[in-house]
Amino acid sequence: MTRPRIVIVGAGFGGLSAAHALGGADADVTVIDRRNYHLFQPLLYQVATAGLSPAQIASPIRAILRRAANVRVVLGKVTGVDKERRVVRLDDREIPYDTLVLATGARHAYFGHDEWESVAPGLKKIDDATAIRRRILTAFENAESAETPEARRRFLAFVVIGGGPTGVEMAGSIAELAHVALRHDFRTIDPREARVMLVEAGSRVLAAFPPALSTAAQAALQRLHVEVRFGTPVSNCDESGVTIGDEHLPAATIIWAAGVAASAAAHWLGVDKDRIGRVPVGPDLTVPGHPEIFVIGDTASAAGKDGKPLPGLAPVAKQQGAYVARVLRARLAGKPLPPPFRYRDYGTMATIGRRSAVADFGWLRLDGTLAWLMWGLIHISFLIGFRNRAVVMLEWIWSYVTFQSGARLITGSEPN
Amino acid sequence: MTRPRIVIVGAGFGGLSAAHALGGADADVTVIDRRNYHLFQPLLYQVATAGLSPAQIASPIRAILRRAANVRVVLGKVTGVDKERRVVRLDDREIPYDTLVLATGARHAYFGHDEWESVAPGLKKIDDATAIRRRILTAFENAESAETPEARRRFLAFVVIGGGPTGVEMAGSIAELAHVALRHDFRTIDPREARVMLVEAGSRVLAAFPPALSTAAQAALQRLHVEVRFGTPVSNCDESGVTIGDEHLPAATIIWAAGVAASAAAHWLGVDKDRIGRVPVGPDLTVPGHPEIFVIGDTASAAGKDGKPLPGLAPVAKQQGAYVARVLRARLAGKPLPPPFRYRDYGTMATIGRRSAVADFGWLRLDGTLAWLMWGLIHISFLIGFRNRAVVMLEWIWSYVTFQSGARLITGSEPN
Repeated sequence: MTRPRIVIVGAGFGGLSAAHALGGADADVTVIDRRNYHLFQPLLYQVATAGLSPAQIASPIRAILRRAANVRVVLGKVTGVDKERRVVRLDDREIPYDTLVLATGARHAYFGHDEWESVAPGLKKIDDATAIRRRILTAFENAESAETPEARRRFLAFVVIGGGPTGVEMAGSIAELAHVALRHDFRTIDPREARVMLVEAGSRVLAAFPPALSTAAQAALQRLHVEVRFGTPVSNCDESGVTIGDEHLPAATIIWAAGVAASAAAHWLGVDKDRIGRVPVGPDLTVPGHPEIFVIGDTASAAGKDGKPLPGLAPVAKQQGAYVARVLRARLAGKPLPPPFRYRDYGTMATIGRRSAVADFGWLRLDGTLAWLMWGLIHISFLIGFRNRAVVMLEWIWSYVTFQSGARLITGSEPN
Repeated sequence: MTRPRIVIVGAGFGGLSAAHALGGADADVTVIDRRNYHLFQPLLYQVATAGLSPAQIASPIRAILRRAANVRVVLGKVTGVDKERRVVRLDDREIPYDTLVLATGARHAYFGHDEWESVAPGLKKIDDATAIRRRILTAFENAESAETPEARRRFLAFVVIGGGPTGVEMAGSIAELAHVALRHDFRTIDPREARVMLVEAGSRVLAAFPPALSTAAQAALQRLHVEVRFGTPVSNCDESGVTIGDEHLPAATIIWAAGVAASAAAHWLGVDKDRIGRVPVGPDLTVPGHPEIFVIGDTASAAGKDGKPLPGLAPVAKQQGAYVARVLRARLAGKPLPPPFRYRDYGTMATIGRRSAVADFGWLRLDGTLAWLMWGLIHISFLIGFRNRAVVMLEWIWSYVTFQSGARLITGSEPN
């Protein structure tokens, strides 16, 4: 009898955690991803704001899974799934499976305003991050050579849309770039004239955190001279800036951090999806009626303790990947299946800037320097690969000591 | 009276060295570059072969010149020079000068075969390097999923055209990537089956070095399983591979390291240029008849001791930049001018791979481990900025100890 074939689509936190835990299992595992690297997404905003280089937060998938001899990696773009024939369709071929794990993540979504994407890019991929870095750094360059005060003000205005962790981190980092790292770099402008605005339709930033931490985060943003605007959703984005309600905020640089939608997995499977495109899964993370198909991570809508869907966080995806591997190992061994999946929440954190972060561990809530140090240690310890850890730590220490940003390169397209 | 205006075009080794030495002079200095960073080109091949990240060998020009309050930096693309009106033309404006320093470098050239560029990219810019890295890594991915042995062989064949330092470094690095770093990463192919060919029309590699070092470099390449082909020029490059003489070498990846041509400076100035596009300059590096225009670095044809034009090397450009600053400071102070420019040759080096390099200091010729250690120390010490030095050193030590390559990312365009 041939060995069972497990196909995992997506090498994000969920897919990689499943693949890793299936290393050495009595099955042939295939990991398919469009890209050749795993991306440590929680630090992607630091690439967008010139603090880190792409290779410092990304590791080749093959290198991560090198020791797992039963796991092979396929670089390719999945275009669909044939549930009847049990094959995953790629552009140029098909890969058969006995068990399928879909861990294809989410992308930023404009909720009916896809035309905003060209002026208000989101942050999901490395190429997004280097494009945003190019926009931010080019805005300062354009301000330096602007011919009118109006033009200069527009180039020095930055609007971040969305007050979740990514929005807060982006706004804080841009403000620090302007006030600290770039401070002495220009002759015509003073980068500290930059106006960084954070627009949030709800009533507070970091709405997933307890209100006291939202207040602390908002105060930290204001210390960095970030203007926070609440309560009015964005009604338009274009080349000239952002409109919230009736107010127009002129700005040359707009960054979208307001929402995500799940990948196309629901469409591939031909199942109903929830409001943000996720596939509803049962307590064992399989698709109802298809015990051979698991969906995990940002693409899945799995109920938490309170019955509400679990949030799209890296720890959820990682725990789900490990759980799927346990189920599959039990099935392979003919042993009793593990109990339904339960997410263990060890806490959430967000950083705002230099010596400023918030952390919520349930039993302990922190803000300020201590939260920031913990944030740094925890993120370093989760980075994959010794080299990345050492290099990122060195980069951070250097930035902290010198007030500089390490990766201020405008790449990807020639200016003009 | 207004302060004299010195405009430097290009922030490579020559332009930056001039700007640096003019910091604090009684003149307004403007540095114009198309890019916002200075690139340490001698290590660019390590970006192309996934050893280093772009930001590790590039520093923002503004940050380098931050302390020179009389120096301003303009990001823009020069389109011409008006010698009569003494202005530099950019896309969208003009910048007047009293003294002009052109240090615009060189780019790779195909000598009448520009159609080869799309299949055989050269290595001059960061975007070239990340594009070549994408091609090399994608070739291994394509080989892993190839359906016929012929296709697999073609994907695993790499041809480097040109046996100068860049060609030798590229061929050696690709061979090491295949034989060492990628060795355990694939399941279908063995990367060690990769065939790396170095094609040189002349009779030896590193023709600018003494013959004994060429022989040593060739032996080192052969130890890395690089096939070296001499004596027959390339007659064609296309998607299928490279033709030398009557022989066709099937290869999916071709890299051009066979020649450079100077930038458009001669065209801007309306002066005669030499065979590879350089502007002939006098003993003080000015254009004959134009004491207010200096041309330095790869763009200049300046006679060396033996009457032959000086080679396009970083130390030549740096010394010329410093010399121009001395001339200008003497002119500003009304003091006697320095004697004609003379290049001081402290030696040249090229590296082939792990513990393998050649060095020619005139009085001392070295190859092997010692030359390699010296090469590393000298290149680290010339890198700009403490952070880059420390990060690159860490990256190299990590690669050396673990046999891994740090920056194996396929970025810039989605596969398929």
